[in-house]
Amino acid sequence: MNLSVNEIAALTRAEIIGDPFFTVSGVSSFEDAQSTDITFACDTKFLTRLEQTKAGVIFVPHTFSIEQSSGYQGIFLKTENPKFSFFKLVSSVYPAKKYPCRIHSHATVGQDVKMGRHPVIESGVFIGDHVTLGDHVHLMPNVFIGDGTCIGSHTTIKPNVSIMERSYIGSHVLIHSGTVIGSDGFGFTQNSGRHEKIIHTGYVHIGDSVEIGACNTIDRGTLGTTVIGNGVKTDNLVHIAHNVKIGDNTLLVAQVGIAGSARVGKNVIIAGKAGISGHITIGDGSIVGPYAGVHSDVGENDIVSGIPQMAHGRWRKVVSIIARLPEMRKKLFSFEKRLKALENKNE
Amino acid sequence: MNLSVNEIAALTRAEIIGDPFFTVSGVSSFEDAQSTDITFACDTKFLTRLEQTKAGVIFVPHTFSIEQSSGYQGIFLKTENPKFSFFKLVSSVYPAKKYPCRIHSHATVGQDVKMGRHPVIESGVFIGDHVTLGDHVHLMPNVFIGDGTCIGSHTTIKPNVSIMERSYIGSHVLIHSGTVIGSDGFGFTQNSGRHEKIIHTGYVHIGDSVEIGACNTIDRGTLGTTVIGNGVKTDNLVHIAHNVKIGDNTLLVAQVGIAGSARVGKNVIIAGKAGISGHITIGDGSIVGPYAGVHSDVGENDIVSGIPQMAHGRWRKVVSIIARLPEMRKKLFSFEKRLKALENKNE
Amino acid sequence: MNLSVNEIAALTRAEIIGDPFFTVSGVSSFEDAQSTDITFACDTKFLTRLEQTKAGVIFVPHTFSIEQSSGYQGIFLKTENPKFSFFKLVSSVYPAKKYPCRIHSHATVGQDVKMGRHPVIESGVFIGDHVTLGDHVHLMPNVFIGDGTCIGSHTTIKPNVSIMERSYIGSHVLIHSGTVIGSDGFGFTQNSGRHEKIIHTGYVHIGDSVEIGACNTIDRGTLGTTVIGNGVKTDNLVHIAHNVKIGDNTLLVAQVGIAGSARVGKNVIIAGKAGISGHITIGDGSIVGPYAGVHSDVGENDIVSGIPQMAHGRWRKVVSIIARLPEMRKKLFSFEKRLKALENKNE
Repeated sequence: MNLSVNEIAALTRAEIIGDPFFTVSGVSSFEDAQSTDITFACDTKFLTRLEQTKAGVIFVPHTFSIEQSSGYQGIFLKTENPKFSFFKLVSSVYPAKKYPCRIHSHATVGQDVKMGRHPVIESGVFIGDHVTLGDHVHLMPNVFIGDGTCIGSHTTIKPNVSIMERSYIGSHVLIHSGTVIGSDGFGFTQNSGRHEKIIHTGYVHIGDSVEIGACNTIDRGTLGTTVIGNGVKTDNLVHIAHNVKIGDNTLLVAQVGIAGSARVGKNVIIAGKAGISGHITIGDGSIVGPYAGVHSDVGENDIVSGIPQMAHGRWRKVVSIIARLPEMRKKLFSFEKRLKALENKNE
Repeated sequence: MNLSVNEIAALTRAEIIGDPFFTVSGVSSFEDAQSTDITFACDTKFLTRLEQTKAGVIFVPHTFSIEQSSGYQGIFLKTENPKFSFFKLVSSVYPAKKYPCRIHSHATVGQDVKMGRHPVIESGVFIGDHVTLGDHVHLMPNVFIGDGTCIGSHTTIKPNVSIMERSYIGSHVLIHSGTVIGSDGFGFTQNSGRHEKIIHTGYVHIGDSVEIGACNTIDRGTLGTTVIGNGVKTDNLVHIAHNVKIGDNTLLVAQVGIAGSARVGKNVIIAGKAGISGHITIGDGSIVGPYAGVHSDVGENDIVSGIPQMAHGRWRKVVSIIARLPEMRKKLFSFEKRLKALENKNE
Repeated sequence: MNLSVNEIAALTRAEIIGDPFFTVSGVSSFEDAQSTDITFACDTKFLTRLEQTKAGVIFVPHTFSIEQSSGYQGIFLKTENPKFSFFKLVSSVYPAKKYPCRIHSHATVGQDVKMGRHPVIESGVFIGDHVTLGDHVHLMPNVFIGDGTCIGSHTTIKPNVSIMERSYIGSHVLIHSGTVIGSDGFGFTQNSGRHEKIIHTGYVHIGDSVEIGACNTIDRGTLGTTVIGNGVKTDNLVHIAHNVKIGDNTLLVAQVGIAGSARVGKNVIIAGKAGISGHITIGDGSIVGPYAGVHSDVGENDIVSGIPQMAHGRWRKVVSIIARLPEMRKKLFSFEKRLKALENKNE
């Protein structure tokens, strides 16, 4: 990479403060950057200690003023969204690998499969019957696609993913390795003291521009549909049970679990390891803290934490008190003595 | 689907209350049903609001009385187990796909492999040496079966499952995608400040009629055996460590983890995300609540929750108090002032 | 197996107390051993109840004295590390399977791949372009190795593992089935109300003598590197996010999750289901308890538990008080009455 500040500014529509002819040789993080690297400072975490990076050039927000540069001697590039601009630049430096259009001889393709333009079907892929693929679908090695599945255009499925029968996957979707879409839900009925399996005739519907992390498990609906809205992003090892509905642009962090028939709104953030009980509703724009156990409905834009969940502010007070419970208990016992003493005097 | 109420009653041995010639065109959930659909109402959650479904026909329990129909105008089918009857009907409407008997040319089969009748071995399957398969075993694409493994009849292994050497899998077992059976346990011994791997010579024994969810990990015994009893059902992302014994008909909900050498009884339910410490015993018929951390033995038929676990009733009281700790702390501080005032007066 | 006590002593450099010509026919656990089996007793958990095993021979520590044998009538073998000696013996009884050197015809190998001596590349394996493999690398069926990956000598990758592009894996590494190395981190940037994916150009570096459990997910660095130190061992279903650094010889127990850019020191133990927040530091030699939620730095050799974490000793007190909160609350209310009574008297 050898780009002038001018060229980078043109690419990212940035305003330059400093030498436009300076040559940038690399992209790097704030901490690891060297003197000819470019980095970004998107918020006060970085903007208040600019002197600590060795980067020659920094993307900063439009609102940033040169007086705040606190000793930093390099060049600024001002844009509306410094992080976005930086990664746009990185993408242009590391262009995506082009895969040739092909159906590998070690792939297995069923009957009545409709492929779009430019399919990339790699070795060990299995495609069942009656499958429809959009344009530029990329199925990486050892992916399984069950019968009747439909996959939108520009979608990439990473190695060793299993997509079970009749799943619907939107366009511009990315599914990471090891993930399972459309497994049967955990549904049984008692009969003569045994758990009898019930048939799962529903399916999974995944919207457009979704990214599913590695080793996720998303179960099909028992009768109806499990729905993952447009723009949803999931981290690794996330479990989504049968008939769950996830609204658009919601984020599910690693190791989250969502039980059957729960409804999660739009633009929700569920932090790592949190659990959502079945059949409840999580309102649009709400945030669920890490490790939270949500047992009842959460309102729109609420922020909750704890098991069972409570308002996040209350939870912060509660956990600080919990750590001091031994002192509180001591105080209580000392009060008992003092009360007794007073009661004796007052007899 | 076009079945008369009469035909459905014959199939499910149900008692009809209403028009036996009414034609049912679909199966559906209580909420989504349309006027020519059939659904079921198995408990008071549904039976107390029958007027809220549009279903033309409802399976209800034998004990249901027509006086309870609260405005619902459709037809009733009374059976002993309405949920079971409903899904029996659904199964007959959605018959399982028949797979032709074959060993795919992209499968790899080792030496001394004994296959039963009607094997279905799909592409990318690897079968090691000295493997025994019962009748009607179905190995879906990219399944790995290690040396010396034995699989009972009518067992289906979904895509991308890994079953390591010398595992024993019973009959009528279903294992969902991405699951790993027989990985080495987490066992090391310290030697000169390093963790030395210890050899794992045990194996995994899975009983009959077991269903294992997606992306489970079930480790082999270090020396002895990891045992999953008959009729056990596990949800997704469940971890079962080396030498664990799980009794018959026990249910393990998603993201449960069970540490080495724990013994879980029969007919136990361990709710989502709960953890069981190593070397402890969970009694028959007990229930462990969600997120619980069980550090010591649980008695037969006990219901426990919390970290570490306590009786579920106590835990419910405890969590309601925890949420009110800030008020409790305030009260305690106000008592301090009042005590001080009294003490001053009484000097 | 038929070995005399003498032969076993020679193999493990043990001191014999008892009959050197006794013939041992099997290796077994303390509980399951029969009269001609050998077992081990490494700590007081076993050493204080030697009379409870039926084993004919027991490995015990050098420090063990015959007076402590509490009624046990069999033979002792004294070594520095009885557990290590025992499993050394077991390894010699169960020698590892020898795999013939080969590249299976159902494997797919890319361009510019450098293989070391004695490669074992099994069916369904995919190796991308520009991959380097050391000597005696064993890739089991359906493993995916992305472009530019480098794997050290004597490393074994179990079935259905996905190792994404440009990963670096050391020597003598063992990676269990279903694991994903080098998936993209959970990194997005907001743009016009949507989460835009950011490119992940970093990679994963795994040191020597590492063992990674089944169904782990280890994300690549966003810009820099995710580092797993030498001798690290992870259990099953562990999540390690982008840019995390794990020091040498650290143990991560099942279902642990570590968020982005956290730094975990050397010789740390993180117990099952614990979570580590992003960007924090866990000191060398520290221990994090099960289910802990670590939100801030942990010092060297500290032992912490709870959510958020506190000193383990305090946490033990805290949880014992938590279980008694209902009684504490009652006491508090009784004090209120007694205070009121006193105040009335003192008006």
